Parts: sequence; structure tokens; C-alpha cells
Amino acid sequence: MSAKTSTEVVIDGKVYTLSGYEGEDYLQKVASYINGKISELEAVEEYRHITPNMKNTLIQLNIADDYFKAKNQIEKLERDIENKDKEIYDLKHDLISNQVKTETAEESMKNLEKENKELLLNKARLEAALEDKLLNGKDTPKTTKK
Amino acid sequence: MSAKTSTEVVIDGKVYTLSGYEGEDYLQKVASYINGKISELEAVEEYRHITPNMKNTLIQLNIADDYFKAKNQIEKLERDIENKDKEIYDLKHDLISNQVKTETAEESMKNLEKENKELLLNKARLEAALEDKLLNGKDTPKTTKK
Repeated sequence: MSAKTSTEVVIDGKVYTLSGYEGEDYLQKVASYINGKISELEAVEEYRHITPNMKNTLIQLNIADDYFKAKNQIEKLERDIENKDKEIYDLKHDLISNQVKTETAEESMKNLEKENKELLLNKARLEAALEDKLLNGKDTPKTTKK
Repeated sequence: MSAKTSTEVVIDGKVYTLSGYEGEDYLQKVASYINGKISELEAVEEYRHITPNMKNTLIQLNIADDYFKAKNQIEKLERDIENKDKEIYDLKHDLISNQVKTETAEESMKNLEKENKELLLNKARLEAALEDKLLNGKDTPKTTKK
């Protein structure tokens, strides 16, 4: 946490010395925002004729309204995040089952390729044997003729 | 949008009639929040001895502080959402490439299974032919002996 500091800000034309843990930039930003709210209300004709007390309450209500709107947005964003987390969870789940499916298919492919190779070798052996038999079959009568 | 309504709220012990498009529940919630802020400050000894003007400014600063903290949280949540959107995009991309991989592997599997089946049939045929040849080979001498 940063150290406690003192900062002078001007709000509604009056100088205030604020002390706290917030940085000067932040406090000036907050003061400037409050002055903006005051200017906005000063621009409305009816506002100029109401009591200072009423003015202050109106400013408080306006700032509090911004706060509650921001809070509502936070709730909406948190719901969005919850939905996105659910989507991420589902996608990860889908991805894992798909990876398992791929691995299974690739494993089967390897086995089938191995089987195929063996069958091809076997085919070559059988064909050779058959060819040999056919040649021997032709040779046999020749030998008997001699 | 809802119709313009009038609502009476009590803030710091005074009754105010607020008119606007916000519902009564919302305005009561905002008034109650401001009263809570006032009570919080009233509980601090030093607050009780400062001018009403200073008190009002302090309440405004406190509410504005809540608003800026909420705004910061909104920014943080929006960054979270951006990151989650990126993660979802990447996961969807991974899922699609994985699905393509699975489909390719399954397609190869089917082709290999087909090839295997043909090779097995071929093997059976070759074996039958060879067996036939072997039997004929044995038969041939028998026939010659007759």
C-alpha cells in the first residue's frame, strides 16, 4: 500500500486538503468528476433557484446514480464472465473428448496399417508359393517325360 | 421506457420529492445508500465538528470514490472478458482443427479397413488356390499310376 499523502483539490470553487492513501492523480480525477457533475446541474435553469441543501443532495443523488449504474454493469459483466467460463469449460471438455477420439482413431490406423503390411507380405509369400507350385507343376511332367 | 413518476425519499432526515423515469425501488435504494454514507461519516468524531459544506463535499467524495472503484472494476472485468473471448476463440479453433484431424483419421481407418478386407479375401483365395494346387499335385501322380 502506498504511503498516506496530502493533496489539495478544488471542488465547487473551494480548496480542500485531502489526506489518505490515494494518489494525487486519483484525487484530482475524482474532484474533477464532482465539478463536472456540479457544472451539469448548474446548466439547468431550475437548479440555480433551489436551496444549497437541495443542490448538495441532488449532486449526491447524481453521483450515487452513476455508482448504481456502474454496479449494475458490474453485475451484467459478472454474468457474462460466468457464461463465458461455462463456455470455456464445455469447449475444453469437447476438445479433450475429441483428442481421445483422434488418439483412438490414430491408434486403430496404426494397427490396421501393421495388419495391412503383414497381409501384403503374406499375399506376396502366397503368390510366390503358388507361382512356385505352378512352375513345379509344369516341371513335374517334364521330369517324368525324361 | 417507464413513465415519469414522483417519489418521496428521506436523505439526511429531510424529505425530497424526486421525479424522473427511475422506479421508486431504485430511488429508495439510492437514498438509503446515501444515508448509509452519511451515517458512516457521522460515526467518525472529527466529522461532527466540520462545516456543513465540508461535510457535503466529503460525502460527495466518498460516493464518487465508490463510483471510481466500480469503474475500475468494470475495466478489469472488461479485460477479463476480452481474455476469455480470446481463449474461446483459440479453443474453438483448436476444436475445429482437431475435428478435421479426427475426420481424416477416421477416413483413413475406413480405407484401411476396406483394403484389409480385400487383402483377407485375396489371402483366402490364394490359400484356396494353393491348396487346390497341392491337392491336384497329389492327384496328378495318382492319375498317372492308374
